[in-house]
Amino acid sequence: MKEFNIAVIPGDGIGMEVIPEGIKVLDTVAEMQGIRLNYTHFDWSCETYHRTGRMMPEGGLEQLQAFDAIFLGAVGFPGVPDHISLWGLLLPIRRAFDQYVNLRPVRLFEGLQSPLAGKKEGDIDFYVVRENVEGEYSNIGGIQYEGTDDEIVSQQSIFTRKGTDRILRYAFELAQSRDKKHLSSATKSNGLFHSMPYWDSRVEAMAQQYPEVKVDQYHIDIFTANLVRMPEHYDVIVGSNLFGDILSDLGPACTGTIAIAPSANINPDHRFPSMFEPVHGSAPDIAGQNIANPIGTVWAAAMMMQHLGCDDMHDTIMQGIEDVIRNGDSLTRDMGGTASTQALGDALVKAIAAAH
Amino acid sequence: MKEFNIAVIPGDGIGMEVIPEGIKVLDTVAEMQGIRLNYTHFDWSCETYHRTGRMMPEGGLEQLQAFDAIFLGAVGFPGVPDHISLWGLLLPIRRAFDQYVNLRPVRLFEGLQSPLAGKKEGDIDFYVVRENVEGEYSNIGGIQYEGTDDEIVSQQSIFTRKGTDRILRYAFELAQSRDKKHLSSATKSNGLFHSMPYWDSRVEAMAQQYPEVKVDQYHIDIFTANLVRMPEHYDVIVGSNLFGDILSDLGPACTGTIAIAPSANINPDHRFPSMFEPVHGSAPDIAGQNIANPIGTVWAAAMMMQHLGCDDMHDTIMQGIEDVIRNGDSLTRDMGGTASTQALGDALVKAIAAAH
Ligand SMILES: CC(C)[C@H](C(=O)O)[C@@H](O)C(=O)O
Ligand SMILES: CC(C)[C@H](C(=O)O)[C@@H](O)C(=O)O
Repeated sequence: MKEFNIAVIPGDGIGMEVIPEGIKVLDTVAEMQGIRLNYTHFDWSCETYHRTGRMMPEGGLEQLQAFDAIFLGAVGFPGVPDHISLWGLLLPIRRAFDQYVNLRPVRLFEGLQSPLAGKKEGDIDFYVVRENVEGEYSNIGGIQYEGTDDEIVSQQSIFTRKGTDRILRYAFELAQSRDKKHLSSATKSNGLFHSMPYWDSRVEAMAQQYPEVKVDQYHIDIFTANLVRMPEHYDVIVGSNLFGDILSDLGPACTGTIAIAPSANINPDHRFPSMFEPVHGSAPDIAGQNIANPIGTVWAAAMMMQHLGCDDMHDTIMQGIEDVIRNGDSLTRDMGGTASTQALGDALVKAIAAAH
Repeated sequence: MKEFNIAVIPGDGIGMEVIPEGIKVLDTVAEMQGIRLNYTHFDWSCETYHRTGRMMPEGGLEQLQAFDAIFLGAVGFPGVPDHISLWGLLLPIRRAFDQYVNLRPVRLFEGLQSPLAGKKEGDIDFYVVRENVEGEYSNIGGIQYEGTDDEIVSQQSIFTRKGTDRILRYAFELAQSRDKKHLSSATKSNGLFHSMPYWDSRVEAMAQQYPEVKVDQYHIDIFTANLVRMPEHYDVIVGSNLFGDILSDLGPACTGTIAIAPSANINPDHRFPSMFEPVHGSAPDIAGQNIANPIGTVWAAAMMMQHLGCDDMHDTIMQGIEDVIRNGDSLTRDMGGTASTQALGDALVKAIAAAH
């Protein structure tokens, strides 16, 4: 019997509401397929921060290291500044475990209404491959003349050849494996004098090794415009930490709701645990109301099982998501329905059971 | 008789095609209203770079300084790396003349089709106020271990209190002057550890001085998503150089075409000339075909005249733009028509003459 140990960090806000639904679906499918999942829960969160002054205890990362994967809800809540909570929990996990690939599929499902006029199922179907551990996300920098009119704040981005090339290689490989073999790189080399011309030069160098892949690149400003004007154009998108972050929120918004979007923080060589979470955040405005959409979390769970080599579990869960969205009876508010978080989770379980 | 000296820099690509239409419209209205406009043309461009190794001659900035305003087409063309062309021409003008405000109105006109489902005239009507001379656009940084596998590139952003506060003040004043009195600030304080928490703290400090202005803030990722999901929500948007750049391309894309969007690079205290240009770039893919949309340039011309104190000229030009778009007979391809650049320019002239 296949067996996996999963670290579960529900985190803050709606993270605590969607994670149980993810586990419910995981358990259903695991049982059907004779796979054993052992969960260990960690209550690390902004609440922990208020109690202890830390988002996770000392040695927290070492505790996680032994697990096969990490299943995370969302981090961040009013009362703790965002840079404290995120640099105290989510971002250190990505870095400590060298989860340098952030893979984010974006798909318009049958049954969902795109805010873009005239788009239907299949018109939006791409991956965002986001560099996940360096680039613009950096705590290098600081403040000079603090508290005076002369205050100067510096914020440094770091791009390494190692970091750039390995994310590009991942993206080129993914593009190469797909029908369209089309890679679009986000840049801003006209404004950001050092980092982005460097990124572009590495894209060009890597493209030499993948002659079958059609490559184009857009400055991030027009990239966002094009995503709205012609989402069909995209197949695999590759971007830096910041640009990938932006495009992987805008993309899902074009599919009707960002709440269905999953985020796989992958350490491709399996040396460390990878982490799976929804793209959405803790959403303090709707937390505690049992109306959050669990699909982003459930889809993330499917990606987790795929990463662990259980493709069947992935496919079964995805089929369940497709069925429930197409059916339309049990959708949450963001998808135009009235179902609760739990009712949607239940519907997923039922659909999966019915199909097998 | 009011008289103004305008420096004209058509630049590259379609910049050379749209600027003559802007001048045609300016001349029509100036004559009607008894205003005299003297133009001095500068052929600074990537072509100049190929000839001389510089985007503009030595002393170029000094030459511009005496003018009342600068009217610019677009900069950048394949064959010259973007960071060379832009840091050689557009960006130094913004900086030398302390054009720290980049003001970009975004409006859905009657007669244009938004790519967003169900949006009509009036649903999209906001300003992007973009910091224009510091922030992420920086040539501080460089490369270490160049050419080796250990390459490290650093790119530094700089935010000063002076630079941050003055753009925020401009944005708060603008919001204060509008019906909705609503300001939305773009941030990414959860990822960018130093710059964005600082930006947020200055927004909070400034908000104290404008108790009537309703302030909200969004991380740039969800901001782009919201712009597509609920563009009606926005009134005045304020963002850093990079975030303002992104939102002011995405916004116009939601109004049907980015080619109508104007960009006013303003030195508010009139110590130096301000610069007016379309938001779109040189568009090498359609250059030389006489199909570029001149409306962004014409709208920029209107903003130029407003900045120079000629509100009537501004209003007359805007009326002409509205009439021609509503009428629909002479639209360029990007707006769903078949008219040439010149035909659309002629239609604007005719509409303006007919209305007066
Ligand atoms: C050409 C480029 C440097 C410029 C910018 O990013 O400022 C353009 O995109 C703009 O928005 O004016
Ligand atoms: C919470 C935040 C730091 C995070 C990010 O920007 O990476 C989130 O937006 C995401 O996309 O996973």
